Amino acid sequence: MNKSKAELAIIDFIRKRFPEKRKEILKGIGDDAMVFRNGFVVSTDSFFENIHFDLRYFSMYALGWHTMAASLSDLAAMNAEPLCALVSLNLTKKIGLNDIKTLYQGFDKLSKKYAFDISGGDIVESPAFGLTITVIGKARKPLMRSGAQPGQALFVTNFLGLAEVGRAVLDKDLPRKQYPVAVNKHLYPEPRIKESGLLKKYAKACIDISDGLSTDANHLAAESKVKIVLDTEHVPIHSEVGEFCAMTGIEPLEFILASGEDFELLFTARYLPKISGVKIFKIGKVIKGRGLFVSFRGKQRRISPTGYEHLKGA
Amino acid sequence: MNKSKAELAIIDFIRKRFPEKRKEILKGIGDDAMVFRNGFVVSTDSFFENIHFDLRYFSMYALGWHTMAASLSDLAAMNAEPLCALVSLNLTKKIGLNDIKTLYQGFDKLSKKYAFDISGGDIVESPAFGLTITVIGKARKPLMRSGAQPGQALFVTNFLGLAEVGRAVLDKDLPRKQYPVAVNKHLYPEPRIKESGLLKKYAKACIDISDGLSTDANHLAAESKVKIVLDTEHVPIHSEVGEFCAMTGIEPLEFILASGEDFELLFTARYLPKISGVKIFKIGKVIKGRGLFVSFRGKQRRISPTGYEHLKGA
Repeated sequence: MNKSKAELAIIDFIRKRFPEKRKEILKGIGDDAMVFRNGFVVSTDSFFENIHFDLRYFSMYALGWHTMAASLSDLAAMNAEPLCALVSLNLTKKIGLNDIKTLYQGFDKLSKKYAFDISGGDIVESPAFGLTITVIGKARKPLMRSGAQPGQALFVTNFLGLAEVGRAVLDKDLPRKQYPVAVNKHLYPEPRIKESGLLKKYAKACIDISDGLSTDANHLAAESKVKIVLDTEHVPIHSEVGEFCAMTGIEPLEFILASGEDFELLFTARYLPKISGVKIFKIGKVIKGRGLFVSFRGKQRRISPTGYEHLKGA
Repeated sequence: MNKSKAELAIIDFIRKRFPEKRKEILKGIGDDAMVFRNGFVVSTDSFFENIHFDLRYFSMYALGWHTMAASLSDLAAMNAEPLCALVSLNLTKKIGLNDIKTLYQGFDKLSKKYAFDISGGDIVESPAFGLTITVIGKARKPLMRSGAQPGQALFVTNFLGLAEVGRAVLDKDLPRKQYPVAVNKHLYPEPRIKESGLLKKYAKACIDISDGLSTDANHLAAESKVKIVLDTEHVPIHSEVGEFCAMTGIEPLEFILASGEDFELLFTARYLPKISGVKIFKIGKVIKGRGLFVSFRGKQRRISPTGYEHLKGA
């Protein structure tokens, strides 16, 4: 979900106010997760009903899967192997023990698949149903947002925009059968833990697509102090994204630039051999300069972090 | 705040369902914090407006202090030195940037005092104002709830019940000047980080008083598989607690057994030398058996974890 301007102002204030001080800490604020010098990596994410998920179409099982996958995605972006998750449940009276058991089945499916523990947390009464998940992983060599350098290319795993199509289809009650991949992507995104492990020899900088390609590529450019140019002709359009955009009259690239929650990995590398079982698209390049640009028929346009609204105005 | 029966049922379910599996993890669920074998200790706590705090009398500064102190208290109970805190802010539209800045001044006061970092977190829109704090510390030798053995005595730092008196005074708008210590204790509790460091040579099992003496002493007895006997005549009554109980007609011991959020340390030790600057009361003993009991004029009565309601019924 895109951060609002107010939220970005708060992040900016906190980051300036609280630089790293403890010697044990390599990176406090400004990456997908905080990083300890011993390789421990920690990230925390909150999710609330009717803001981040909708129980009209999320089963408790899907909710457990979705929120845990979203949390693990931050570890994948850091090239960290998950060790455990702490869950703080914020419960209203309408959520019963059986709901919780089903929610934890969703967590458990991923905890078994990626071999991490569910380790405690907190349970409190709350005016609104939600949860905060803290995941802890370890990385031999944490992969930061700041490692992009001129001469590298920009890659992304899989297609983008599918999760947002899925959300819209479910939200507007459009025919799900026409968008099976997109619907599944919103309910059951796959954290790219395995892909991250396979890419670690090549990737130099990485972020996960949680806020949308324009916001997240801008983060990479800003943290690395480089210019990133997206090659619009190489951003792949999945057929379900194409159909949805045709139906709604949105330009597919604009849609993809602003669509979050795909939880794919956006990374830079000098080169990339074919890696079996991992779908990877080369969508841009890193050059000297600052900021994010798109190239379209040989011309470059700057893209601000808030995405297609500004692109429209450009 | 006391956990409800429903919340205890959820904790019980999760604990049985998710035992420790990863070799890196010493203790997942069932102590004040989760513990890694490398000495890292992690705890997470959620706080919501009108459930855990009331903005009629909490300034944003006091809220920052209170919630961070409550979170750090779990590290103190584990004998861990705090390294950093991650804060997930759950914001409604009524909370502005200046509120956040003042909230972080409260965090900062404690972060300077105890030399830990504020390291990132999350900021999301929420239907209700709240926050979840994850604290990470390290302990040379983590102090568990499970170390109590027959022959040890039970100790507590400082007086109990003050925080609940303070909360009631503020909530019912009673004259604050008559209860200065209690009011300060509710708004600005002190995490017992320093005391924890001074006690570490002696303490064998420890928990912080967050849910109330009866609940927390029951946890110690259960995790250590021992019987703990509280000596009612030795539980100290602070004058403000005494006055409040006299006014409201509640028996002081019953009040103290059920009053949470003092964030004092309840611990067992074979003996305890006088430690300069730390107020410690011996309030009971550990013997063979199971469960929590109070001794009163030579007779013992069992106390269940939910406190004085059951004591009344006994």
